[in-house]
This record gives sequence, C-alpha cells and structure tokens, in this order.
Amino acid sequence: MHSHKFKPEAIIRYNKLLEALQKAKADAMIINTNANLYYTAGRVFNGYVYLNKEGDMFYFVKRPIGLTGERVVYIRKPEEIPSILQESGIAKPANIALELDYSSYSDIVRLSKLFPEATVSNGSAILRQVRAVKTAYEIAELRASAARHIASYSHIQGLYEEGMTDIELQIEIERRLRLEGCLGIFRVAGPSMEVFMGSLLSGGNADAPSPYDFALGGAGLDDSLPCGCNGTLIRRGTTVMVDLCGNFTGYMTDMSRTFSVGKLPDIAIQAHATSVSIHHAIAKEAHSGIAAADLYNLAYEMAEKAGLKEYFMGHRQQAGFIGHGVGIEINELPVLAPRSRDILEAGNIVAIEPKFVIPETGAVGIENTYLVTDNKMECLTDFTEEIIPLD
Amino acid sequence: MHSHKFKPEAIIRYNKLLEALQKAKADAMIINTNANLYYTAGRVFNGYVYLNKEGDMFYFVKRPIGLTGERVVYIRKPEEIPSILQESGIAKPANIALELDYSSYSDIVRLSKLFPEATVSNGSAILRQVRAVKTAYEIAELRASAARHIASYSHIQGLYEEGMTDIELQIEIERRLRLEGCLGIFRVAGPSMEVFMGSLLSGGNADAPSPYDFALGGAGLDDSLPCGCNGTLIRRGTTVMVDLCGNFTGYMTDMSRTFSVGKLPDIAIQAHATSVSIHHAIAKEAHSGIAAADLYNLAYEMAEKAGLKEYFMGHRQQAGFIGHGVGIEINELPVLAPRSRDILEAGNIVAIEPKFVIPETGAVGIENTYLVTDNKMECLTDFTEEIIPLD
Repeated sequence: MHSHKFKPEAIIRYNKLLEALQKAKADAMIINTNANLYYTAGRVFNGYVYLNKEGDMFYFVKRPIGLTGERVVYIRKPEEIPSILQESGIAKPANIALELDYSSYSDIVRLSKLFPEATVSNGSAILRQVRAVKTAYEIAELRASAARHIASYSHIQGLYEEGMTDIELQIEIERRLRLEGCLGIFRVAGPSMEVFMGSLLSGGNADAPSPYDFALGGAGLDDSLPCGCNGTLIRRGTTVMVDLCGNFTGYMTDMSRTFSVGKLPDIAIQAHATSVSIHHAIAKEAHSGIAAADLYNLAYEMAEKAGLKEYFMGHRQQAGFIGHGVGIEINELPVLAPRSRDILEAGNIVAIEPKFVIPETGAVGIENTYLVTDNKMECLTDFTEEIIPLD
Repeated sequence: MHSHKFKPEAIIRYNKLLEALQKAKADAMIINTNANLYYTAGRVFNGYVYLNKEGDMFYFVKRPIGLTGERVVYIRKPEEIPSILQESGIAKPANIALELDYSSYSDIVRLSKLFPEATVSNGSAILRQVRAVKTAYEIAELRASAARHIASYSHIQGLYEEGMTDIELQIEIERRLRLEGCLGIFRVAGPSMEVFMGSLLSGGNADAPSPYDFALGGAGLDDSLPCGCNGTLIRRGTTVMVDLCGNFTGYMTDMSRTFSVGKLPDIAIQAHATSVSIHHAIAKEAHSGIAAADLYNLAYEMAEKAGLKEYFMGHRQQAGFIGHGVGIEINELPVLAPRSRDILEAGNIVAIEPKFVIPETGAVGIENTYLVTDNKMECLTDFTEEIIPLD
C-alpha cells in the first residue's frame, strides 16, 4: 500500500491514531472518507481502514486492484469485514467510532450493522483532533505547497491585461497554478461548501453575499455555484483579491493577496495596512498554548480601533472568524473565532485572513498560512504584503 | 428567491416533487444538499427546503442574506423550523423523507430530531427518480452545455505541441473550456468519487487502475487524487482520450473523444470503430421503454463478437457499466449496467461510453450524451466520431 517514501510516516500516523482512539475510549474505528483514507494510508482508495485499541490495523480495499502490503485485504463489500477479523482472532468491538460528520447516513447505518451489538461513537471528532497537529512530513508537504503557491502568485502581475474581466484573469492564474503543479482539487470537509479552485473578487462583487461560511463572497457566474467571479470588468480604482488554490501536494496552503488597478481610495489603503498590522500583531502574540479566540479578539479590536469594524470580514455579510486550520482540507482545526475553544498547539497550521470589504472598491488585506511552534508562528507563505499594482 | 427566468420552471419542478412525495407516501421532505437545493430552488443556498404532501413549501435560508420571495424564511438553525411550521398552521408530519444517501449521519440525526415522533424514509431515492427525467428547461440547459462542450473540443487539435506531457495538454484544454464558460466544478453524487475537471489519459496510463467507479483510470499526479494524468510524455503511436468537464450551465454534458499522435496499431483502430458501431446500434435501438440492461448487453455482445472483450471498459480493471444519467451530477439515473433495473424514459439524459483500453497504446472510443425521447435517442454532443490526429 505505502510508497517507500511514506512508510516511516505511516508508523507515526498509526501511533497518533492509536493514541487518540485509546484516549477517546473507543474500541475500534472504521475510516471511509477520502480525506481520512488519504491521511491514514497515504493514498486515496475505495474501501475502509479498520483500527482497534489493541493496534490491529487493516486496509480493506475495493478498488483499485493491485495494491499490496501486509495490512491490505481485498473485499467486495464491507459485510465481509467481521468474518475476516474473526478469522484473524480479533475480538469484536463493544464500541466503534465511525465518521458520523462526513459519511452519509446510509453508509453509517450499513457500517454500524457490521457490529450490531456495538455502540457507535463519533470518529470524525477524533480524526479532526489528530489531523490538527501536523507531523514533520506534513509540514514539509505544506512548505512545498507554499513555495509553489508563492511562485504562481509572483506571475500574476504579468497575466493582467487592460480590459480583462475577473474570470478572464482568474482563468490565466488557474493555468499558471496548474503549470506549477497545482492539483486543482479544493477539498472542503463536509458537503455544504463547494468551490472551484478558490476565489478571485474584483471591485464591488466582493460585497455580494455568498451561501458559504467562507471569508469571501462574490455573486458567482451561475446560480449553481453562486460564489466568486461574476464576469465583471476589472475597473480602475478597484481591487482584485486573489485567493486561489494552494493544493500542490495533497496538502494545501491558503494565501490571498490584494492587487489594484489605478488609484485606490484612502480608506482601502488604510484598511489594507490594518490587515497587515493585524498579521504582525498576531504573529507576535501567537504560539503554542494561546487561545484561538484571543487571536480573533485581538484582530477584531484592531479593526474596531481603526474605525473599520463595518468592513471587517465582509460588509453586507460578515464572516464570523479570521482564521482556520488547513491541511488536506481547507477547514481544519483550530478555528479562530470568538467562541472557539481551540488552544493553539505546536504543529497546527493556520491560515489567517483579516480582510476588509470596501463597498464599490473591493476587498483588501492579505492571508497567510502559518506554522505554530512552541514559541512563535512561522509564516509559510512569505510574499510581499503590499497591494500589488496590476497596471 | 427565483430569478424571473426560473419562475415558471420552479412551478413545474414543485409539481414533480409533490407528485413523487405523494407517490412515495411520505408526509413531508427536507432537502439540504447543494445539488438538490439547486434543483428545487434554482440556486444553491445554505439552508433547507421543506415540502409536505399538502403542497406547503418553504425555503429556510441561513445564507446568503438578501434572498426574497414568498416562500423564503430566514433561520439561524434548523431547530427553528418546527415552530415556524406550527405558526403557519401546518400539521406535523408522521413520516419525513430525508436525504439519507447524501447527507451526513450527524445532519440526518439533527434533522430527524425536529420531528421526534415521525418515522424517517429515504428522500434521496425520491429525488434521484425525479431528477432522472429532465424538464424542457433542463434539456435546454444541457443543449447549451453541449454546444459549448463541442466548441471547446474543436480547439484541441490546435492546442497540442510536440513534446507535451499529458498534464500540459490537459491544462491548455481546461483553459479553453473555462474561456468557453465552463464552471469547472464537476459534481459527483456521494462523497467517495473525486475528480478535478475530468480526465485526460495518454498511452499506457489509461490502463492504470483508479479507485473510483468511473469508466476511466490513470495513475494520477499524486496519491491524494490517484486518477487521470500522470505526467507522462505524449508519445507517437499512442492515443489521448479526452473526457473533460462539460458543466457550462449547472447541467453537465459528458463527452469523450480519442486523439492520436503518429500511426496507431490496427487493433486500436478496430476497437475505436467498434465503439462507434456500438453507439450507432444503441442509438438505433434505444427509446423510451427499453431496459437499460438490454443496452449494456447489446454493447457487451458487440465488443465480444469483435474479439475485444478483454479491452472493453478497461483492461487491467474493468468498469461494470457503459453509460449513466447526467445532469446536475455526473452519476444520475438511469445506469446502463448488466443488473440495472432502470427502464429508459422520455426526458432521460444518458451519457454512453463504450470504450476500450489497448495496453501501451491507450484508450479508444467515444462518449456522447443523448436525450431519450418516445421513439429514439438524440445525440446532443454531435461532433466528429473519428480518431482525431493531434500531429
């Protein structure tokens, strides 16, 4: 199953998962969603990972054919799992953790029937906590994504031509990202938020409310995906907020930069400077042990003091957070929100995005992805913080 | 809520949903996944559609702000729904249909607690049946997607340059699709199959097994998305199978064409001709009332007679179907598979893809999207059926 490169990492993750399972007092866990299969096995496959508190682990694979490894067992359907475990002398679990938050109801009912006498607990919560603290391998993957994310963004100035619409510019940036190795796919945990390669918001469209709990709006090009670009001409005196996909390795960085055409009003320039100041203040304060809510409050108070509260994290519709964990998915733990109970830990990777939406002018501010360490936060997406002129 | 354009269509869909609900003997239904919200409301929003057998319908909206219409009620959380219904004098349902196959277990548990005395039935099945038969509006949307899908494919010959890798060519085609208006997002019902804008398979990579139940393989560029392009150089004497995203309107067509570089072996040319013959035979046979399984068998027998069984629908790993419904998502009803019980109906939109994988040479064959009518099948993706030389 594992590539040679992934093998030592697989052991580290196995130990993390086993410890979390034991701590949650679950007897066993079945993993069946792509993000968590990838986390556990180092690759996406169609099937199930089974892990129990004694440390027995199986990769039950339906597809693709041809995977090998000592833990790999091919099955046609999950109903074969109990007898395979029994033949291996493995006790039935009295409690089984399943991915209740991300698997469908029908899938969970089917899986819970494998062990009809077992109680069911929520494995999604266990996996979210495990994945919030990245391993050295994952941090290296994120650094690699960051480097290519930055390289892609460094081309954006050269891609703009006068008279372009927002979507025309986005398409050229998408191409550039793909040529740098971007996998394109933008994973969001849970089914309700859909996005195609992120968001580019030009001028007043940044103030159009979106259905998603993202720190971005935009009317979108179609009612089936009402978010992001709306086909507007990029006009003088407005900004272009670029927040596009940083998934180059299976692990995605999140990074936004503000671009401008023509001269911006003073309030936009001031708001952008406030965003940069918030980043610097948070980077100075943050380290392992600090409460995520405190960082939200620090940002909110700075926005308020600057007299920019009504533009902070949106204008017509405001987002209720200023940052979030990232990794395999864009919405991991910790969450930097006023009522978050998350405490930052060394190994967290957090995207921080204190942005402002100035009506008619557009969105300003920057977003960076940081690594939390024992005594600081390190910026992985180190790139100019200034507003970047396109013209 | 509805755009002016969508309003008459909304009434048609309302009537279809109401009839299906009554036929299923459910008292009410709650819809909460994006594809079905889009189907029901004509736009994606964050919230819930409630419909009961008496015909009362509500759009309970969390986000975005600003939607208006007689059925729109803003809520902060679904727990507000029962009291709003009660205030409107609406009886509690004794049975409630929920999206069991596509909503998470946690969401379904939360929604089923709104009516703790009600039994729960599977709304996913109801919605799949309703959506399988397209309205005139949906057919027009699919025709519009088909036209732009064809226009994009007509540029592919001019995008190839000698020495390109598979992904380099795919990126240029993606750009072309996007410039023609492709929304990019490739919706698949259920969480297990992920794809970014479809698939391009060059040479031997077409024979690499994928984890998904797609009629396509490919090793992929990364273990997090092990499907499609693998970065291989496009070599002389091989094919390039292009099967990229036809979502231009929220409704997607599915269309594949085979391209070649240099001279192909006879078996590849023969297999391609067999695929085209299968299309013609199916188009001749198919109409409202025919069993989907019969069309699969017709295709399979033709492949067998041509001595090509071992290459049909894959070689190392074979797919167990030759076609599928398409619309908002790529995997709708009916399914053209040996054990399918689906009967074709007028208004079905089906993608038919009898393909062959010739080891080392690559995939051949074509895929078209058809509209089923009372007495025939009409091809919506009418474009050259020949192998198209890139050089």
